[in-house]
Amino acid sequence: MRWTQTFIPTLKEDPSDAEIVSHRLMVRAGLMRKLTSGVYTYLPLGLRTIRKVERIVREEMDRTGALETLLPILHPAELWKESGRWDVYGKELLKPIDRHEREHALAPTHEEVITDLVRREIRSYKELPITFYQIQTKFRDEIRPRFGVIRAREFIMKDAYSFHRDEKSLRETYMVMHEAYTRIFERCGLRCTAVQADSGAIGGDFTHEFMVLAGEGESEIISCGCGYSATLERAETAPPKDCTKTGELKPLQKIHTPGLKTAEEVAKFLGMGTSSLVKTLLYQVGNRSIAALIPGDRELNEAKLKHFLKVDTISMSSPEEILACTGGPLGFSGPIGFEETMLIADIRLKHMENFVVGANEADYHYINANLDRDFKVDGYTDLVVSIEGDSCIKCGQSVSLEKGIEVGQIFELGTKYSDVMHATYLEQDGQERPFVMGCYGIGITRTVAAVIEQSHDANGIIWPLSVAPYQIEVLPVNVNDDKLRAAGEDAYESLKRCGFEVLLDDRDQRPGFKFKDADLIGLPMRVVIGEKAMAEGKVEVHLRKTGESIRVALDRVPDTVESLISDKRV
Amino acid sequence: MRWTQTFIPTLKEDPSDAEIVSHRLMVRAGLMRKLTSGVYTYLPLGLRTIRKVERIVREEMDRTGALETLLPILHPAELWKESGRWDVYGKELLKPIDRHEREHALAPTHEEVITDLVRREIRSYKELPITFYQIQTKFRDEIRPRFGVIRAREFIMKDAYSFHRDEKSLRETYMVMHEAYTRIFERCGLRCTAVQADSGAIGGDFTHEFMVLAGEGESEIISCGCGYSATLERAETAPPKDCTKTGELKPLQKIHTPGLKTAEEVAKFLGMGTSSLVKTLLYQVGNRSIAALIPGDRELNEAKLKHFLKVDTISMSSPEEILACTGGPLGFSGPIGFEETMLIADIRLKHMENFVVGANEADYHYINANLDRDFKVDGYTDLVVSIEGDSCIKCGQSVSLEKGIEVGQIFELGTKYSDVMHATYLEQDGQERPFVMGCYGIGITRTVAAVIEQSHDANGIIWPLSVAPYQIEVLPVNVNDDKLRAAGEDAYESLKRCGFEVLLDDRDQRPGFKFKDADLIGLPMRVVIGEKAMAEGKVEVHLRKTGESIRVALDRVPDTVESLISDKRV
Repeated sequence: MRWTQTFIPTLKEDPSDAEIVSHRLMVRAGLMRKLTSGVYTYLPLGLRTIRKVERIVREEMDRTGALETLLPILHPAELWKESGRWDVYGKELLKPIDRHEREHALAPTHEEVITDLVRREIRSYKELPITFYQIQTKFRDEIRPRFGVIRAREFIMKDAYSFHRDEKSLRETYMVMHEAYTRIFERCGLRCTAVQADSGAIGGDFTHEFMVLAGEGESEIISCGCGYSATLERAETAPPKDCTKTGELKPLQKIHTPGLKTAEEVAKFLGMGTSSLVKTLLYQVGNRSIAALIPGDRELNEAKLKHFLKVDTISMSSPEEILACTGGPLGFSGPIGFEETMLIADIRLKHMENFVVGANEADYHYINANLDRDFKVDGYTDLVVSIEGDSCIKCGQSVSLEKGIEVGQIFELGTKYSDVMHATYLEQDGQERPFVMGCYGIGITRTVAAVIEQSHDANGIIWPLSVAPYQIEVLPVNVNDDKLRAAGEDAYESLKRCGFEVLLDDRDQRPGFKFKDADLIGLPMRVVIGEKAMAEGKVEVHLRKTGESIRVALDRVPDTVESLISDKRV
Repeated sequence: MRWTQTFIPTLKEDPSDAEIVSHRLMVRAGLMRKLTSGVYTYLPLGLRTIRKVERIVREEMDRTGALETLLPILHPAELWKESGRWDVYGKELLKPIDRHEREHALAPTHEEVITDLVRREIRSYKELPITFYQIQTKFRDEIRPRFGVIRAREFIMKDAYSFHRDEKSLRETYMVMHEAYTRIFERCGLRCTAVQADSGAIGGDFTHEFMVLAGEGESEIISCGCGYSATLERAETAPPKDCTKTGELKPLQKIHTPGLKTAEEVAKFLGMGTSSLVKTLLYQVGNRSIAALIPGDRELNEAKLKHFLKVDTISMSSPEEILACTGGPLGFSGPIGFEETMLIADIRLKHMENFVVGANEADYHYINANLDRDFKVDGYTDLVVSIEGDSCIKCGQSVSLEKGIEVGQIFELGTKYSDVMHATYLEQDGQERPFVMGCYGIGITRTVAAVIEQSHDANGIIWPLSVAPYQIEVLPVNVNDDKLRAAGEDAYESLKRCGFEVLLDDRDQRPGFKFKDADLIGLPMRVVIGEKAMAEGKVEVHLRKTGESIRVALDRVPDTVESLISDKRV
């Protein structure tokens, strides 16, 4: 393709709303433009990369035996009401109303639609397992769209759904998908890690997110040298191995702490660290209050609390609810004297002694509180947000915290949808059984952004060969010089004849301008046709990633490119 | 692909809501399933054909130099308000409202979005002409979705938009697109004709529809042996060449026609044909009434009246408006005595004399009315719906009426959008000028249906090779017979090795059942592996279109298929 015959509107300036490098570069390199908040137009260069990612995904999905379909975007509300997600999904679900006042959902995901198809069409265990996938535009009405295509309202996804007779068959397909995802992201040139994750609104118990580690990622990941990794939401960590308890239990004592409501205020007043306090956090689970106890220097991870309680929703108690439950005001809650309230303690409390807790009375705390002596808890679990330096749940070593971008997620759904939607098949024994399901998503447009997050420098994108919009740019430094222009045409045509995807910068612009754009759009290889080298009949083959330049004869360009690729130097 | 490893849910029964053969066959052959009114899921076989049509369209678009992009589905209402179409488009536009109460359009077409992009990004005449295209899901909230994917609410389209300095450049691209469209539909195996059409809500003066002639089409086309053809809405026809007027003008006479309001009632009462009457139809154009005069045996074509008046909307006058304008009630309007009302007459009135008209008075008509003597008109034009046997506007011969399916349309938009949206570029002379625009659409899913409408028989689809989901079906009549099964595998593998797309019917079903399904899904070639022929080491290569069977040795199957294709027998 000739630059003058395509449309690559590069920009010198960063777009003002772009917070991360992939967003900045996707706009500056002319891959996309914003239409409205979280909604983008993909221009020719951007679309070429999207199609390449799609092709890799399609090849790997086909290889697993998954069947490509195309499911609708416009869903009747009835299906979402049947699954119970019409309300649960909340405001992220766009709900257009048609001319006959019928409600619809603009699909963010397709569990309902595929379950409806399968319950109508598949009747026998003989037809199982079966996996469907699609590559389709999806919608999610994000409260705050940001990071370009990473948190967009309209985006492209691959989603797949598998149907099974039992959990064993599901696990087999889950593992096949796990491998396929690993291959897909590798082929896209990404360094990616699969981490244990929380399933959120999709449901299911077993799920992994595929995370691309990137400094500006929006997700946080806990990982350990032993191989353990999980999203921050899901990550479990353990107390330090070595317990520093002395065993000397001091007498419980109520002290006056006027107006001191936060752990920080109380600790400061008592001249100790917040780690000597235990925070008592009251939550409502349905109509019931429960108390969560955590070390004073940590944050509660609500997902862990929900997981422990096996409930989908909890909410923080209001001051009125706290008063009704504890007899004291907000800020002075503590575990002592609770008879009817369920107490759940973070596992780290087992290593604490003589700590400070609220006295359930305005302006009073207890010091030297101790577990079992002063109060009993109903259960221990890991309740806090993990932090760098926590002990790995698997091996006990220190974990580290990294940022990443989630590019894919796989779920074992079990019978969550088939139960409520009465999606059953006939087993060999003549019984109706619910389908056991899995689902598997990849953010296509997100993957493009993730590639750029991992592969760029100060001058622009550095495309991996597999997903580059073109493989090679041919850059004659001056198209008004007949000799250089002719050499450019020669290199362009000979590379195309060899089957390469080539972009010829045939613009009548200064060399510096063209070099800057070449760095910005970041094609893996560049053939520079300049006066000096051409005086000897030579051109320079430049590698974007390493900055290396190789001087070769004009007619050796295709061979040189081919050997650079086969030697994996690009 | 093995039948047992894909998903082709064929049906014996026609779906109850399917009115036309393509809809029936797309469901019965397992190409698609309905999710909700006018919204379909495409199953593996259907999607394969859609992708093949898309590939043909993409190749031909790329060949014209058009640039592929992907524009968003979710549009901000502001853009549609800016163009004025937010209201004009009416109820066919789905308008989701987001969580911040902002209105959006679910795109049925993309003139606004592409014009917005171009006015931001293209500044100079040097960058023109330029054409963008996309292949994308579109939405139209049809009042009555029907005919399967032909009148669907969610469908796939290719749409392209071109931007020019002037009309001449636009016409050049228009002609290039005209040629590309002709090639596209030819390559899809369609017999297609380009007809002059009305531009409807898209706008513009010059437009052609690409019509696939089909007995069950939803569009009507007027065509003539001389090559003239147009949609029924747009078709102009002329009065017969030979005028039968005698020139003997009889005296105007008012007669009592009690309670006779329709042309049929009056004609019957007077013992003459409706062709001896002139109907006077009152319309409101804004606040003004106008009268259209047409022969009593014809229907008014409102598009022609609008076109003549150069307005976008007209509405029939209410009884009150008729009374106010004519002084008489509905059913007795006539052209005599109108001073201030504009009268527009169908061109055929020039051939009429001594006709009957309403007297603008309850229960009275005039007989022997004559143009110019009794009243004058403000203009003549072709105002009626053309019918079979009318005279061709080009050559005067009788035209015929056929049914068709519109698969594409091309428009010269001119500056309709660039004017209202202030989309301008800088001309060589330094002046800001509005872009001159064209737009070009192809219904991808519609094209699939049109292929089936033109190519089927009582047993099922007859796919043209170019868009068939697979090219060849291998059908061993009994997979429990080791020899037949092995021969089936052999043919399947050897054809795949030669690069063909092959479906192996490896199901353990009766031969009759498998043959019926093979006819239904309609792959162009079938390799039947039966006992008799196999006893001699032979198989039958069957052509779906002609029903021919060729007996060949098993190892000659790939060669036979190749020569059938190169001889264009398939």
